[in-house]
Amino acid sequence: MPNAVAVKTKSSSMRLLQVLGGEALSPPPVWLMRQAGRYLPEYRVVREKAGGFLDLCYTPELAAEVTLQPIRRFGFDAAILFSDILVVPDALGQSVAFLEGEGPRLDPISSGRDLARLDPAQTRTKFARVFETVQRVRQTLPREVALIGFCGAPWTVATYMVAGEGSSDQSAARLMAYRDRAGFSKLIDILVETSIAYLDGQVRAGADALQIFDTWAGMLPDEEFEAWVVAPTKRIVAELKRRHPAVPIIGFPRGAAANATHYLQATRIDGLGCDTTVPLTQMRKLSESGVAVQGNLDPLLLVAGGPALQHRVRETLQAMPGVRFIFNLGHGIVPETPPEHVAQLVDLVRSAKHGG
Amino acid sequence: MPNAVAVKTKSSSMRLLQVLGGEALSPPPVWLMRQAGRYLPEYRVVREKAGGFLDLCYTPELAAEVTLQPIRRFGFDAAILFSDILVVPDALGQSVAFLEGEGPRLDPISSGRDLARLDPAQTRTKFARVFETVQRVRQTLPREVALIGFCGAPWTVATYMVAGEGSSDQSAARLMAYRDRAGFSKLIDILVETSIAYLDGQVRAGADALQIFDTWAGMLPDEEFEAWVVAPTKRIVAELKRRHPAVPIIGFPRGAAANATHYLQATRIDGLGCDTTVPLTQMRKLSESGVAVQGNLDPLLLVAGGPALQHRVRETLQAMPGVRFIFNLGHGIVPETPPEHVAQLVDLVRSAKHGG
Repeated sequence: MPNAVAVKTKSSSMRLLQVLGGEALSPPPVWLMRQAGRYLPEYRVVREKAGGFLDLCYTPELAAEVTLQPIRRFGFDAAILFSDILVVPDALGQSVAFLEGEGPRLDPISSGRDLARLDPAQTRTKFARVFETVQRVRQTLPREVALIGFCGAPWTVATYMVAGEGSSDQSAARLMAYRDRAGFSKLIDILVETSIAYLDGQVRAGADALQIFDTWAGMLPDEEFEAWVVAPTKRIVAELKRRHPAVPIIGFPRGAAANATHYLQATRIDGLGCDTTVPLTQMRKLSESGVAVQGNLDPLLLVAGGPALQHRVRETLQAMPGVRFIFNLGHGIVPETPPEHVAQLVDLVRSAKHGG
Repeated sequence: MPNAVAVKTKSSSMRLLQVLGGEALSPPPVWLMRQAGRYLPEYRVVREKAGGFLDLCYTPELAAEVTLQPIRRFGFDAAILFSDILVVPDALGQSVAFLEGEGPRLDPISSGRDLARLDPAQTRTKFARVFETVQRVRQTLPREVALIGFCGAPWTVATYMVAGEGSSDQSAARLMAYRDRAGFSKLIDILVETSIAYLDGQVRAGADALQIFDTWAGMLPDEEFEAWVVAPTKRIVAELKRRHPAVPIIGFPRGAAANATHYLQATRIDGLGCDTTVPLTQMRKLSESGVAVQGNLDPLLLVAGGPALQHRVRETLQAMPGVRFIFNLGHGIVPETPPEHVAQLVDLVRSAKHGG
């Protein structure tokens, strides 16, 4: 098992992997979802150079640069590949465009017939550019900083593919799943297989850990949650674990706190991303199921800053002694965030008393 | 206690009140959130006559008519007052406009200073029109059909008042609460007091039960959930119970399944509205805390119809024998719903085998 040995060696210096591997650390490792992005002036400079948003994702030199920017500025314990969950449908051949200030637009898939437009074989070229980014980042990144690869979970990616855009209630995908269960199921299957290939390639290129973002997991009734969130994630995790047993996987089923215990037990993830609504007491309890818990500061507290931010950071750290805990937000950084507040946050986390 | 006696008499014929009062019925009583609305052709006829949407809410003859339409067509066990949660800010003096196809627009409140614009004393005139609607409906409604009055919960109403519009993440209100806790707290206080007066008037006019809609309860971190959802709802429920001990109150903290037990115990509501994501097994468990549970069919199943709808309705009914259960949706009916599917649903619920 060369992987296990390799990671064991690495894990001695990467604090993120130590926690995902079973240890509780104080202070906890810290990184932030969407830590590379528009709130950073140095990101905006690169973004202007790149042309379209997807061009940035597919240009290894630039994508690697923006992945590294927040590490240089804040010294986080992990970098996360700069990319987008819609790289997968784009690589599959569904047209994806990012309109300034309006979010993504896709040529929607409205029935099983439209699936003929998707071609898993043609993903190679575009995925290869992402893998090159991973390789470049891993070569540059300090040894003790973990590199997280990621993909969107099949359900969440499918909601965009079916609606043709983001939506607050994911009604297009939910309706397709009710009306054409076979067709929707086939779409999910394609996404499971493609996500496995995508994550596998990221690990081979140097990713030390993986995160599966299920941003829209929180709107599904129980049977649908089982069919479209739990089962596909379980398949992805099982296959990745078979190929790379020592690479830990974090699942992030946003909005699904009520079903979190079932999700983590069924999918066998190593880390559970918790959104802002998960009470700290529940995070402690969830960690007792044998996972690391990650989260869950409200990103708006990073906008507000000041005493409200300090209070919540302290309270979070005080709730977590002895817990396998990774400090993060409950959702991504928003563009209005002052970078100074992020620096303050990292200071607050790092200066927390050991064991307290 | 004249109220208790009056309701006890009523409750012998109103199935909704029987369940809220402690009984489990088979088949369960059924009504649907947003059962009066755009999906009904007869509603669209009245809506055209009314001018603006708020004009419809404030014209007792027309508002009473649309409240009664779904009762005539489907024979639900309860009618719910036709109105809108934004009647409260409108009556308080914040300008509210409903733009066709775009949702509500309000002149936003962005700090404690803006609260001077709100005047609880001036709500009387507009509230009186709503109370007249309640009176008219109660006079016309068959004796065995309960009339539900309602308001938006302070947090949910505040999210619109602060953002000036609907938003998927309620970030404006969350930010104001972090930045200006005293100001936001004062806004919530005004809404608590105004909601009490509003619900009290509805009961005096003839409402048999009340529902407090906290549509946006699901995005708050635990301390904020306590401060802005639980505490204000508790105050409203306590005061209404003091004035009208026999009028049952249903709370609907949408998206807050993980905190539902705490919410129902702290607020002392009689019925808990469950959104579509609450598993049926959890609904059963919640009912053991001494509340009736109401919900939670996905409104999109009413759009889809067919076998998916039948399957879920059967499964729901099979999960609920012996449970104090009110059949409803997990969120409001959407405009695309074919009225035939609603008729089918009511048939399915009513024809369920007793005890099964």
